[in-house]
Amino acid sequence: MIRLRDVAERAGVSVSTVSNVVNGRTGTVGADILQRVQESIAALGYQPNRAARFLKTGHTPLIGLLVPSVATPSWGLLARSVEIVAQSEFGFRILVGNTDRDPQKEMSFLGDLWSHGIRGVIIVSPLLQQNHFRDAIKRGLVAVCHDQCPVPGSTLNVDYVSIDHREAISLAVNHLIENGHQRLAFATASGKSVSRQDKIEGFRATAARAGLSATADIIEGHGSTSYGDDEMLQLGRNIAEQIAARAPRPTGVVALNDMLATGLILGFQSLGLRVPDDISVVGMDDLPIAAFIPPAISSVRSPINEMARKMVGRIVERLNNPQQKVEKYIYSPLLVRRGSVADLTRS
Amino acid sequence: MIRLRDVAERAGVSVSTVSNVVNGRTGTVGADILQRVQESIAALGYQPNRAARFLKTGHTPLIGLLVPSVATPSWGLLARSVEIVAQSEFGFRILVGNTDRDPQKEMSFLGDLWSHGIRGVIIVSPLLQQNHFRDAIKRGLVAVCHDQCPVPGSTLNVDYVSIDHREAISLAVNHLIENGHQRLAFATASGKSVSRQDKIEGFRATAARAGLSATADIIEGHGSTSYGDDEMLQLGRNIAEQIAARAPRPTGVVALNDMLATGLILGFQSLGLRVPDDISVVGMDDLPIAAFIPPAISSVRSPINEMARKMVGRIVERLNNPQQKVEKYIYSPLLVRRGSVADLTRS
Repeated sequence: MIRLRDVAERAGVSVSTVSNVVNGRTGTVGADILQRVQESIAALGYQPNRAARFLKTGHTPLIGLLVPSVATPSWGLLARSVEIVAQSEFGFRILVGNTDRDPQKEMSFLGDLWSHGIRGVIIVSPLLQQNHFRDAIKRGLVAVCHDQCPVPGSTLNVDYVSIDHREAISLAVNHLIENGHQRLAFATASGKSVSRQDKIEGFRATAARAGLSATADIIEGHGSTSYGDDEMLQLGRNIAEQIAARAPRPTGVVALNDMLATGLILGFQSLGLRVPDDISVVGMDDLPIAAFIPPAISSVRSPINEMARKMVGRIVERLNNPQQKVEKYIYSPLLVRRGSVADLTRS
Repeated sequence: MIRLRDVAERAGVSVSTVSNVVNGRTGTVGADILQRVQESIAALGYQPNRAARFLKTGHTPLIGLLVPSVATPSWGLLARSVEIVAQSEFGFRILVGNTDRDPQKEMSFLGDLWSHGIRGVIIVSPLLQQNHFRDAIKRGLVAVCHDQCPVPGSTLNVDYVSIDHREAISLAVNHLIENGHQRLAFATASGKSVSRQDKIEGFRATAARAGLSATADIIEGHGSTSYGDDEMLQLGRNIAEQIAARAPRPTGVVALNDMLATGLILGFQSLGLRVPDDISVVGMDDLPIAAFIPPAISSVRSPINEMARKMVGRIVERLNNPQQKVEKYIYSPLLVRRGSVADLTRS
């Protein structure tokens, strides 16, 4: 049986360096040394005793990431960030499941995590209160919920990591108000997740504080339930038609996310409206595309890397200490001003 | 010790149904039954003996997916497709590694796959000929290479699954030629992967067949090496400036991919050129955004789901039969005609 010590000796490094490599903690190991260790592993045919570790600890250093779809730009960015942080800072790797907000797919993914010995999962889903999540968490799955806030009174044993959705909307609405806009709209998709509900309430509250309740509308678009990349663009186009038909027309629109904002802008332009001269748009998420569509879209940015670090860190901590209390971590978003909002105070 | 039989009895289903569920083959199991089995597993505290299986077979039903970044739209779509096919059709789950085309990150990911008992990987990287891949494959990692063709004379023990890059370019170039374009350009990123080289050669060959060698240019943009989402958009803008400055100016441009095509179009528009009236653009990959930017971009589509099915299927077959010969599978792309190409034959 080949041991760590044999690998270390052949590679001319310490046993702890070899241990770091075989356990995925390669962030601090130089390229040369990593190569030497891996060559030594290959030459000796060393097999890390991962199975023994599994039997001993009950979990492997893997974390699940449950998302509706990694092909949706904002979740692709999240998946990338979570994977990089998990690997480089915690030595964990990521198993991804695309679940389309389908309870059966979510349940199947949770079951597979369990049977692979994976005891930690980051959840992006509005269905957190449903039984499949409750059961899995009761069984001992350590979960962190991304970008949802707890339902009032919830006793679910999960951590929450989210931006403050009300503050995000408030930043966007006040960006319009400061530029003299008084007839406002919030363009959103149907489907009432807690985060969408928070955004709607944040929109209403911010408008009310500015005395604009009578001229601030929620405009919902209906699309397929998957709301992928192209559905959001299409939804934006549909809502643009609704908004353009209103009399009097809103002068400023806040969109649920940047793909919807992009669809709105393309929709307004195809109807002959100029953005921002005839109508202003603020997006949400600060996707790369937001800065490139003309006019570049003012948007609200989340600290994705920090949130990813917190989510992975919480899971690792609770795997080591299952009694640890659940917490919620709410991050502040940042307004990024670009060219999609007209200044009406000067006209 | 709780056995499969106990779980089956409590759930009122067959042992083979329970076996399907704990081994991730849930595609054919109804939602009700899945829920009953999982409740029974939870109630009895059954722990699937995945560790024993690992010791017996030497691999767990997981596959690695090594990509530069899942946040890049085309690889996000690929990751989604691979994960869904692997889960629903083969009962495998996917471990994703974002490696930025960095040899050290790639090596680290391959090492982690090995130490997790994962013996199959789908590789998206132009660095396939480097030692870290060679060593891992020699050690016994079963690899399928996505969207690269073998280097001539390569003896690497991997399967290749790709579209025919020359045919893809040929479709795009002929789309321009059929519409009367004679001054052509191919807009690409610097960095010479086999697939990029194939595209350049395909562009030259197609132009030559139409007698247009003298008026067909390769125009390379230089950006950061990561070439993510926004880098490609920026690269397109830079190349648009180069093309606009040429005299005589090309009338039709083929872009390496749709994000670069989007950047080109936005760049031309910001320089006061109309697309397609002043200059036509054809993209590649058929991303959702391609159909939404005005003008909707003509593009070339790959059969992503079929390719994903082939890649996962080949890995599963070779895990069961390591002696299986390597093959290359080349798929035909499809031209999608939209509004970004002007018809010059009528003017």
